[in-house]
Amino acid sequence: MATNKRIAEATQESLHRIFTIPEAPDSTLGAIEQEISQNLAGFLGNHIVATEQRLTEIEKDFACSAIPEQPSFVSDHMHHLLDKLVAQSVHTSSPSFIGHMTSALPYFILPLSKLMIGLNQNLVKVETSKAFTPLERQVLGMMHRLVYQDNESFYQQWMHSANHSLGAFCSGGTVANLTALWVARNNLLKADGNFKGIAREGLFKALKHYGYDGLAILVSERGHYSLKKSADILGIGQESVIAIPTDEFNKIDCHKLHEKCLSLAQENIKILSIVGVAGTTETGNVDPLDRIADIAEEFACNFHVDAAWGGATLLSNKHRPLLKGIERADSVTIDAHKQMYVPMGAGLVVFKNPAAVAAIEHHAEYILRKGSKDLGSHTLEGSRSGMAMLVYASLHIISRPGYEMLINQGIEKANYFADLINQHQDFELITRPELCLLTYRYVPQAVQQLLAKADDEQQAEINSLLHNLTKFIQKRQRENGKSFVSRTRIEVGRYQGHKILVFRVVLANPLTSKDILLDVLAEQIELAKESETFLPKLLAMTKK
Amino acid sequence: MATNKRIAEATQESLHRIFTIPEAPDSTLGAIEQEISQNLAGFLGNHIVATEQRLTEIEKDFACSAIPEQPSFVSDHMHHLLDKLVAQSVHTSSPSFIGHMTSALPYFILPLSKLMIGLNQNLVKVETSKAFTPLERQVLGMMHRLVYQDNESFYQQWMHSANHSLGAFCSGGTVANLTALWVARNNLLKADGNFKGIAREGLFKALKHYGYDGLAILVSERGHYSLKKSADILGIGQESVIAIPTDEFNKIDCHKLHEKCLSLAQENIKILSIVGVAGTTETGNVDPLDRIADIAEEFACNFHVDAAWGGATLLSNKHRPLLKGIERADSVTIDAHKQMYVPMGAGLVVFKNPAAVAAIEHHAEYILRKGSKDLGSHTLEGSRSGMAMLVYASLHIISRPGYEMLINQGIEKANYFADLINQHQDFELITRPELCLLTYRYVPQAVQQLLAKADDEQQAEINSLLHNLTKFIQKRQRENGKSFVSRTRIEVGRYQGHKILVFRVVLANPLTSKDILLDVLAEQIELAKESETFLPKLLAMTKK
Repeated sequence: MATNKRIAEATQESLHRIFTIPEAPDSTLGAIEQEISQNLAGFLGNHIVATEQRLTEIEKDFACSAIPEQPSFVSDHMHHLLDKLVAQSVHTSSPSFIGHMTSALPYFILPLSKLMIGLNQNLVKVETSKAFTPLERQVLGMMHRLVYQDNESFYQQWMHSANHSLGAFCSGGTVANLTALWVARNNLLKADGNFKGIAREGLFKALKHYGYDGLAILVSERGHYSLKKSADILGIGQESVIAIPTDEFNKIDCHKLHEKCLSLAQENIKILSIVGVAGTTETGNVDPLDRIADIAEEFACNFHVDAAWGGATLLSNKHRPLLKGIERADSVTIDAHKQMYVPMGAGLVVFKNPAAVAAIEHHAEYILRKGSKDLGSHTLEGSRSGMAMLVYASLHIISRPGYEMLINQGIEKANYFADLINQHQDFELITRPELCLLTYRYVPQAVQQLLAKADDEQQAEINSLLHNLTKFIQKRQRENGKSFVSRTRIEVGRYQGHKILVFRVVLANPLTSKDILLDVLAEQIELAKESETFLPKLLAMTKK
Repeated sequence: MATNKRIAEATQESLHRIFTIPEAPDSTLGAIEQEISQNLAGFLGNHIVATEQRLTEIEKDFACSAIPEQPSFVSDHMHHLLDKLVAQSVHTSSPSFIGHMTSALPYFILPLSKLMIGLNQNLVKVETSKAFTPLERQVLGMMHRLVYQDNESFYQQWMHSANHSLGAFCSGGTVANLTALWVARNNLLKADGNFKGIAREGLFKALKHYGYDGLAILVSERGHYSLKKSADILGIGQESVIAIPTDEFNKIDCHKLHEKCLSLAQENIKILSIVGVAGTTETGNVDPLDRIADIAEEFACNFHVDAAWGGATLLSNKHRPLLKGIERADSVTIDAHKQMYVPMGAGLVVFKNPAAVAAIEHHAEYILRKGSKDLGSHTLEGSRSGMAMLVYASLHIISRPGYEMLINQGIEKANYFADLINQHQDFELITRPELCLLTYRYVPQAVQQLLAKADDEQQAEINSLLHNLTKFIQKRQRENGKSFVSRTRIEVGRYQGHKILVFRVVLANPLTSKDILLDVLAEQIELAKESETFLPKLLAMTKK
């Protein structure tokens, strides 16, 4: 019993210690921190094992479902994390990993993140975030201005207004799109006469009151899957998301969009929103936003732009015209953790009308009291971290011209790579870059020639083998861990609109050099040779 | 032109530099980092200005809506952040700030956070998170086991199963509750005959198909506001959240709950979920979960537990019985960023049935392919950070017995403080702590005596003055910045169920000492004296 008490006291003492930082920090931890600070790339390069372990193997290290009954020493656990977790994580910041939308982070982000986490503010209300609340409102103001370019007095009037909000900060693009559609839905089905509005009475009564037979969200077939997810969550149903065909440049076919709007009106289906895409996830293309805005205006419906990926292009004066018409959207989603080089967890949506968010306003007793400037009264999430600080710092330190350079460089590099692929006899460019994304596949010259003269059936057979070959190369490349491209399937006009498996490349990392791009192609050619079935079969076909 | 080119080159060079960490890190940044690492409490104490500035004053520093056209030096910007942002942030980790649910963080959290952010994994899919995916699945497994205590083979079977999920990690309790109710809604209104299910066809057709006149979510009047928000988002409507009265201990009145279930059945309103609260936000009480489970079973409806705050109590063998019945819930929300001492942004929900999430499954071409173990196919959010790593590390380093000590200490301290308040002649305890939360107010002894013999009308008058006095003290205390308690309004039985404004105290910070608690009461007595209207009026009443 006395021993138990001593153990309890010792543990209590050590518990107290972990909340008070020791004068001499734990040596392992201290050494690692220093290594990360001084050379993150080196640290990751040293610790991440290039060759991929099978997921089922990794799972063996994460198999225990019991919460430990014995505390671990910090240094021991740190070694465990380095061995089992860091070693088998993905080197997202490597310049040769060009398949993700995550990139290297500017070096100042790490110490600032640590400060942000140490401050541990909760942005749901002023009382737990004080200056972070005006800061976040300013960031939303800056992003709003980037999109809508209203004048100074507009921002002076609304940026810090208690009952208004220029947007909402959130964890990512999915929540941003969901928030935008939630606002659109609640404004469309607002209180009217005896009907107290959808927020209070729900969708069933709302549709009955307004006499609609259903709602629809229109977006190109390249729209992000989060829109269907949002339609599900909002109670509208995934089938109400209508995919409009795209043209050969992966842009929404506005003629077909217009036709669909007409036919929906005849069916008594109300359009909840037309969603334009600025930077499709798979091909990086931008819809003709101005033309969509015209159609939305004609049908008096909400117009949302999903610019999660492409929104940062507005920072480039050179490429901004690509997004012309975005300033006519009711709301715009932008992910700062993509082309704004902020860590994962920084999405946002801006609203043209600062009063739009009234449709989703919430209050409670201990929080978000009426008239307060608490951000939480207009957000989907409740407690949230101070991520806005990292966007704020990046906008100041990098500045608009700095971002313009990053954006322009990425697009130039993508065009360079596209040319390289086009000029290479054994590769087929599938989609040309409009932003810094492109898709292609490995197709030996002889197979290309065969494809060109093949009939539909033969084409399908070749493409099926190429599908397997592309998948083989992509997986092998990932497993080898030297470089990485992602893969996706897209419809290609010249193959009768059949879905073709392609390599997908994102050139947002400023450290990706032209040499790396050459190496990636060279590596893929080598990997193709390792294919024991698909490549031989394809080559055999060319010799028939 | 030549000059412009040189500027462009210089900027390009410096842009490249910010993505490659300099050998000798920027001195200001380096010094600050070291200060944070070695003594976070000291750093915050040095930089956060205690006396509160008016929000309208702070807003002047965050007034510019234009994105800078000139880059800032990192060190200059760092000074700017320290002066304008950090100085005016909230000292959430201070042991005398006992009004928030955020607390001090264990020291190992900061370096680990830095590592997590440097790795910048995206948990939406294995391809961008590799070992982080099994790690998150393990954390969900551990939390699931903490709640449901299934046997080892259960976890071996389901923890890493591609088409199942023991839960979902998310940014916080609001998204966790929303996810739980989304899953409940979609399972209730699932595909049936010709009806393809609510996920595809939406709520309107679902209710028509099933022939319900509406849905209802039942929760005590102390339920969190996120439930109404979820009902709004899910298309059910806020009014479908039915607040069941609580007893004198702020626990749901199960007799009234049962009655309500009966009457809803008669009205053809289907119960979507009965939500039990484990740790009400305002008073920290736990509903009789076992009794609620009986009722949910009787009416064959979903049973969700919002244990965002109280869930961590399960780590304490001593206090775990308080939550008896939680293991019968279909889903449970727990916020790791509350009583598990992890930074803001770590919420989660666990599901009793590993197949429950099939109701919200989503797939896409480039991601979340069928059969993959990508976490994103069963989460509301898309791209997400690797926060699960911090929960994982804390569970290992602190371990269950360590957490038990933290939980037990908090509850003991809250009871100590409650006794202190009870014994003090000039304070009135409003709610006794069940977990480490309590509420009270300052009521001078003479006023207490007056209240005791007052009729209803006089009571109302006194309580109205006390309302103003409590608000005055709470605001003044916050403005002075020495210590902090929050405030809320709750119905109190002995005052005919009228809403009373109270101080709300959360004793989760292990560094909060008994001396600090004594100081808080002493400070409040002093602050009361500064009230030039309310206290004199109250005292005058006692002399009538």
